[in-house]
Amino acid sequence: MTLVDDLRNDFSRVFSDFVNRSWSDSKARLHGAIRYCLEGDGKRTRALLALLICESYGRNPRLAFSSATAVEMVHAYSLAHDDLPCMDDDSMRRGRPSLHVAFDECTALLAGDAILADAFRVLVDEEFFSDAAFISLTDRSRLVRELALASGGHGMVYGQDRDMYWTGRNDFNLETLETIHRNKTGALIGAACAMGAISGGASHSDISAWREIGTLIGIAFQAVDDALDGSTTLGKTPGKDLSQKKLTYMTLFARNQVMDFAREKTESAIALIPSNTRSDRLIEFIGRLLSRQT
Amino acid sequence: MTLVDDLRNDFSRVFSDFVNRSWSDSKARLHGAIRYCLEGDGKRTRALLALLICESYGRNPRLAFSSATAVEMVHAYSLAHDDLPCMDDDSMRRGRPSLHVAFDECTALLAGDAILADAFRVLVDEEFFSDAAFISLTDRSRLVRELALASGGHGMVYGQDRDMYWTGRNDFNLETLETIHRNKTGALIGAACAMGAISGGASHSDISAWREIGTLIGIAFQAVDDALDGSTTLGKTPGKDLSQKKLTYMTLFARNQVMDFAREKTESAIALIPSNTRSDRLIEFIGRLLSRQT
Repeated sequence: MTLVDDLRNDFSRVFSDFVNRSWSDSKARLHGAIRYCLEGDGKRTRALLALLICESYGRNPRLAFSSATAVEMVHAYSLAHDDLPCMDDDSMRRGRPSLHVAFDECTALLAGDAILADAFRVLVDEEFFSDAAFISLTDRSRLVRELALASGGHGMVYGQDRDMYWTGRNDFNLETLETIHRNKTGALIGAACAMGAISGGASHSDISAWREIGTLIGIAFQAVDDALDGSTTLGKTPGKDLSQKKLTYMTLFARNQVMDFAREKTESAIALIPSNTRSDRLIEFIGRLLSRQT
Repeated sequence: MTLVDDLRNDFSRVFSDFVNRSWSDSKARLHGAIRYCLEGDGKRTRALLALLICESYGRNPRLAFSSATAVEMVHAYSLAHDDLPCMDDDSMRRGRPSLHVAFDECTALLAGDAILADAFRVLVDEEFFSDAAFISLTDRSRLVRELALASGGHGMVYGQDRDMYWTGRNDFNLETLETIHRNKTGALIGAACAMGAISGGASHSDISAWREIGTLIGIAFQAVDDALDGSTTLGKTPGKDLSQKKLTYMTLFARNQVMDFAREKTESAIALIPSNTRSDRLIEFIGRLLSRQT
């Protein structure tokens, strides 16, 4: 089994090569903005989940490189659009100026649009990752379906819409919050896990299990994120949630309770892991998401 | 062969059913905005090209319904984002208030994002159009590839970036304009044609020909659009291009020259049509695009 940090480094190098190779028109602001957006120093959590799950089926994790790349692209575009003035209006992201601050609003909007469309191209185009040639066309169609469902109007974007709707309101409960985060954060992490499983040759029922596992990990991940708001190590504007009157787990619970909630969701996720996989490394990685400080 | 108007009505009905069925959460502003954006009274030019090209291979045009739907979705999202204040800042579209005017900027941004992602889902998900089950998984991957390439950072969005860059500048020439419109308008129409051909079971070389045919039709289409700017029948704010100092064919040529240019591009497109197809109806339709008043 690969060490998680080695796998992250391996992926980051390939991802970075891919980004530089793919958007190299130095004259176009758009291509510069796409590179800036994708080169941010992300944790690559979604990518690592896909790679580790693929590996848990005894396959080379590199078979999930196209899935991991596509998911990281969708995540990066969503952050760029979330940061826009008409949405969360955030000027810092991953420790650097947000995309629309580094470029301009119009270019940030367009770069996000382009990244979303090109994420789907990565899944079906063999020119990007040679390993991906080992993924059958049937499985490629499944990968596209997972990613599209998770990113669209019944997934991540629905969650963002509900998040914007509830910002500043008071008549919510835990169910409201779960609907937001199941979609906003959970759906894409669920897709990352399902896509890792597809790349690993998992059965149909295993794929469904991984989708739910990812969704639960996503909810836990968001709860930890909420608990970390206010910390300067997070790479985004500290205390932003509070000042924007965002509905977060910290609105409803004390920090200790939020962490208990995250631990509970993580345990539920781990309990669903199909028994026919070798998931020690993955479980260790999921556990580390709970104790992260960034 | 089907009459073009019958085909348009047939498609519009199925498209409308699909829209109402797919985004029916009446509580979410997002779903209302998606429906509003997709229900606009469009000409469905891209859809009809896909359907007619599929039919020109002797197949039922309904086999291209998923392609036609996906292309119309990408087109609709691109108009919604183009109309946003940070882009063209247009308050009218298809004879109605623009999406961000009818809803708000944040919802218009999100609805566009969702529509783009869900367009890819339409191509791989058999639940939407039963006829699409006759499209092989290999062909579905090809459809995704065509649409992603045309919509991404090397297609439509690149064209929009170049368009924004050149707005208000003076040091351009015809080549600049062709780069803009080959990407901004041509790429997606090229994809519509290629996807129609894939749905019709065309060979690899035919598909490439159709992609270029569509691109040329797109350039002609844009030239006619530019010549119509100032007309109140167009459904968008009249004279907008001029007042925004947009680089258009009317900046470089007199109206008669613009129409000659469009005619020339259309003739080049028609000359490339593969001889193994029955394209009379298609050619008639392409011709009508030249004389349109809206």
